[in-house]
Amino acid sequence: MTNSQFEYVRKFELPDMCLPNCWPIVRIDGKNFHKFSHKHEFEKPNDARALKLMSRAAQEVMNGMVDVVLAYGQSDEYSFVFKKSTTSFNRRASKLSSLVVSQFASAYVFHWKSFFPDKELLYPPAFDARTVLYPSDKNLRDYLSWRQVDCHINNLQNTTFWALVHSGLTPTDAQERLKGTLASDKNEILFAQFGINYNNLEQIFRKGTVVIRDKKKPQTFQPAATAGEAKENKRTERGKKQIPTPLLELHVDVIKDEFWKTYPHLLDP
Amino acid sequence: MTNSQFEYVRKFELPDMCLPNCWPIVRIDGKNFHKFSHKHEFEKPNDARALKLMSRAAQEVMNGMVDVVLAYGQSDEYSFVFKKSTTSFNRRASKLSSLVVSQFASAYVFHWKSFFPDKELLYPPAFDARTVLYPSDKNLRDYLSWRQVDCHINNLQNTTFWALVHSGLTPTDAQERLKGTLASDKNEILFAQFGINYNNLEQIFRKGTVVIRDKKKPQTFQPAATAGEAKENKRTERGKKQIPTPLLELHVDVIKDEFWKTYPHLLDP
Amino acid sequence: MTNSQFEYVRKFELPDMCLPNCWPIVRIDGKNFHKFSHKHEFEKPNDARALKLMSRAAQEVMNGMVDVVLAYGQSDEYSFVFKKSTTSFNRRASKLSSLVVSQFASAYVFHWKSFFPDKELLYPPAFDARTVLYPSDKNLRDYLSWRQVDCHINNLQNTTFWALVHSGLTPTDAQERLKGTLASDKNEILFAQFGINYNNLEQIFRKGTVVIRDKKKPQTFQPAATAGEAKENKRTERGKKQIPTPLLELHVDVIKDEFWKTYPHLLDP
Amino acid sequence: MTNSQFEYVRKFELPDMCLPNCWPIVRIDGKNFHKFSHKHEFEKPNDARALKLMSRAAQEVMNGMVDVVLAYGQSDEYSFVFKKSTTSFNRRASKLSSLVVSQFASAYVFHWKSFFPDKELLYPPAFDARTVLYPSDKNLRDYLSWRQVDCHINNLQNTTFWALVHSGLTPTDAQERLKGTLASDKNEILFAQFGINYNNLEQIFRKGTVVIRDKKKPQTFQPAATAGEAKENKRTERGKKQIPTPLLELHVDVIKDEFWKTYPHLLDP
Repeated sequence: MTNSQFEYVRKFELPDMCLPNCWPIVRIDGKNFHKFSHKHEFEKPNDARALKLMSRAAQEVMNGMVDVVLAYGQSDEYSFVFKKSTTSFNRRASKLSSLVVSQFASAYVFHWKSFFPDKELLYPPAFDARTVLYPSDKNLRDYLSWRQVDCHINNLQNTTFWALVHSGLTPTDAQERLKGTLASDKNEILFAQFGINYNNLEQIFRKGTVVIRDKKKPQTFQPAATAGEAKENKRTERGKKQIPTPLLELHVDVIKDEFWKTYPHLLDP
Repeated sequence: MTNSQFEYVRKFELPDMCLPNCWPIVRIDGKNFHKFSHKHEFEKPNDARALKLMSRAAQEVMNGMVDVVLAYGQSDEYSFVFKKSTTSFNRRASKLSSLVVSQFASAYVFHWKSFFPDKELLYPPAFDARTVLYPSDKNLRDYLSWRQVDCHINNLQNTTFWALVHSGLTPTDAQERLKGTLASDKNEILFAQFGINYNNLEQIFRKGTVVIRDKKKPQTFQPAATAGEAKENKRTERGKKQIPTPLLELHVDVIKDEFWKTYPHLLDP
Repeated sequence: MTNSQFEYVRKFELPDMCLPNCWPIVRIDGKNFHKFSHKHEFEKPNDARALKLMSRAAQEVMNGMVDVVLAYGQSDEYSFVFKKSTTSFNRRASKLSSLVVSQFASAYVFHWKSFFPDKELLYPPAFDARTVLYPSDKNLRDYLSWRQVDCHINNLQNTTFWALVHSGLTPTDAQERLKGTLASDKNEILFAQFGINYNNLEQIFRKGTVVIRDKKKPQTFQPAATAGEAKENKRTERGKKQIPTPLLELHVDVIKDEFWKTYPHLLDP
Repeated sequence: MTNSQFEYVRKFELPDMCLPNCWPIVRIDGKNFHKFSHKHEFEKPNDARALKLMSRAAQEVMNGMVDVVLAYGQSDEYSFVFKKSTTSFNRRASKLSSLVVSQFASAYVFHWKSFFPDKELLYPPAFDARTVLYPSDKNLRDYLSWRQVDCHINNLQNTTFWALVHSGLTPTDAQERLKGTLASDKNEILFAQFGINYNNLEQIFRKGTVVIRDKKKPQTFQPAATAGEAKENKRTERGKKQIPTPLLELHVDVIKDEFWKTYPHLLDP
């Protein structure tokens, strides 16, 4: 039994290399996470444990793919920015997105118990992924700004909605109350009705999470290792004889220039 | 803060719809599974538990994506055949491959403990994925034949190699012994030296695993449910008010006509 | 001066190979031919000279690209069907479409004076082109049926419109008269008002033009050679030592089975 | 007869939009121009008439496609640079390349007699075309430098080769004589043996041709109008009520900064 008569089928695999000199970004999104968060009784409007689990999974991706220079996450989505000049997997778009999203999903399940020690994972979640290319640094920054503004808009909406619901309104009535309101109206509702100053809410909820490699301050960040991880880390260190650049989790503004001035190596590695 | 000035970045997402009237196949492959199987001390040449875990994860994919008509797996790879006329996710190639591969990876971790109750999962694995299109039924069958012949060739090689190693040869010597041997030579080594009749080995090792939906004999197959799954299944049944077509795991030849005559609905749904 | 520092730019050329085992079709369309036909005073509703010039240009394409098995034209468009298994130009879609469309356009100008001896070509026309893939023979036939039905619908509409205009109606009034009419209404207008039996009109107008290679009756077709062509033909015959299969221009139905039964080699070369 | 049962075939046309914020370049190349130039007895090493005809055809393209900001040609090739932000034809790559290449080819035939009044065009030529994207201004400039260095290298080679052949060497012997020579060797052969100072050769041969729109000095360039063109120009002016920016043909270095400083609007429209 030889394979020669069937091997022609390999020719149906067509190349999908990313255009050179563009920033490849892989964005993943939870599939049916509305249901997933409901089934697992996530706290509303934000569940800090769920957000931190997402970031833990993102770190797993970054530890395995050294050309990811930055990841940004909010809600049930995460974006992974590969360096412009990456040649990882010959820049094949399907390789980049599939390895990112499968590593993310498997890490999400793997680390679940560290973040939800009292809650059983009912079923394994899925995520979709796409690879998008951004030619210029401005495009890249605008992409990240787009996601962070989206985080803000959704969070302000959800925070107000759930404040109304927790105060006794039905979801339908809360929805009705917010129809047509502007950001300023929502801030006003929060402050006047609930004594909440939106700008004092935790940064992780308002800004999302940025993960970068900390080239300046080595060893400042070390994720809490589970039993399995501890073994794995030892193995890695022995095997590779190299300590990976530690990852830094930030909840900061990525829209203004300050962030990019603080970490100039991100755009110019 | 509005998003209007940044939303232009959405236009960089280019469409990747699969050509109509072709069979979309998503094939996933374990990343660095040589290392993964070594670290987790998989039995050689084949670890039945690991193969069954792969198939369990494949079933999770098929339960979530109803347009997958057939899946075929061997070693650390699995192929998922979508029906020719699928309109799932608008036939977007990146959606199909990312949802398949992330569901597979998360299910692999989720079900690990059911198949390796005594072995801790050390770290979460990743898989790559690609979507390939096959225009004709013959192309589709040739694709599956290609993978099944590959299973056979590798299994015969590995079975002989590990028989030599278990008998005392070093891996290098075993490699040397097999250099240039034909299939007939390997069969002869197995029989003469170890009393092994290759054709009597378990079908799962020689043929791999086919998973299809059993339209004829409902309820014949029920995967062993873990605690989490039991809840989930109940939920699904309550939520959807529908019992999904049971999945059938087979270890049979998919090269000859017999398989396709037995399950004619696969090619003509 | 060496080119080594600049040659990296070649890597920005990405592959665009057609999926194997599909019929590649290149369809070209005249750019702004409404204006072009007006400027060159084409007869309305159909100008036989213009249609024949289109077919002459199509033949030039087929003489230069031996893997085109069939071409179908109507109005200012032409479709070129490459054989399913073609490996011409490594099946690169951009190569196929650019060579077809540029050869067509240059031939259109080159042969203009043979078809419009009394009318000067005012400016060189442009055509767009696209390569589309059809997986099955049925898809291919349906594509050609689609174009031929389109020919019929437009021709019936135009024939009725221009009959009304030639009888004295303004274009606006003719348009108004036809608004909402069915095919049967148009046939009735033509017959009752102008004594025209639509089905007796020339086939070239109602069916368009099919060009195929006549494998059965060699040498039956020879396009009228201009001075330049005569030289060229002699040259070709001398140079290549081969007489190309003669081309056959037909104005027949390609929707029903008869055509495909008469020329079975088209689908099964 | 309706088209509804066939119209599904339109769905096989897949989109091919160029990534935004990149420079689309369409490069065309003559098909079999070695034979074409031989048959039409082009002067060697360079035929100024043929080069000028190429540039005349390029102008026709630029007159019809206003978003082409620059064209660069040498030998039997021409590159057309669309502005980075062009939305012409929705940035569809196949539209851009097919319209450029068909307009170029038809114009080449149309204008032939103006440049070769004593030589009949024997057959209509074809050109291939591809659309390539360049993300940054540096990439764009490097692309053009790549083509201009290529022009130089080929021209030095051809000039020396034909000088040797015209002096009596057979082509084979001339080839042999040049094997392994560097640029300096070729310059030396030209000067010592033929008294030719390469740097004094005409710029059009050494630098190729750049065509841009002259925004500063309107009306300085007017291509010699043939009878047909004169009519067409009048028509255009009457029809559009606008005088297009005149085109400027240059034979200058595009590698150094000077060119880009002289025409800053090219990179920053």
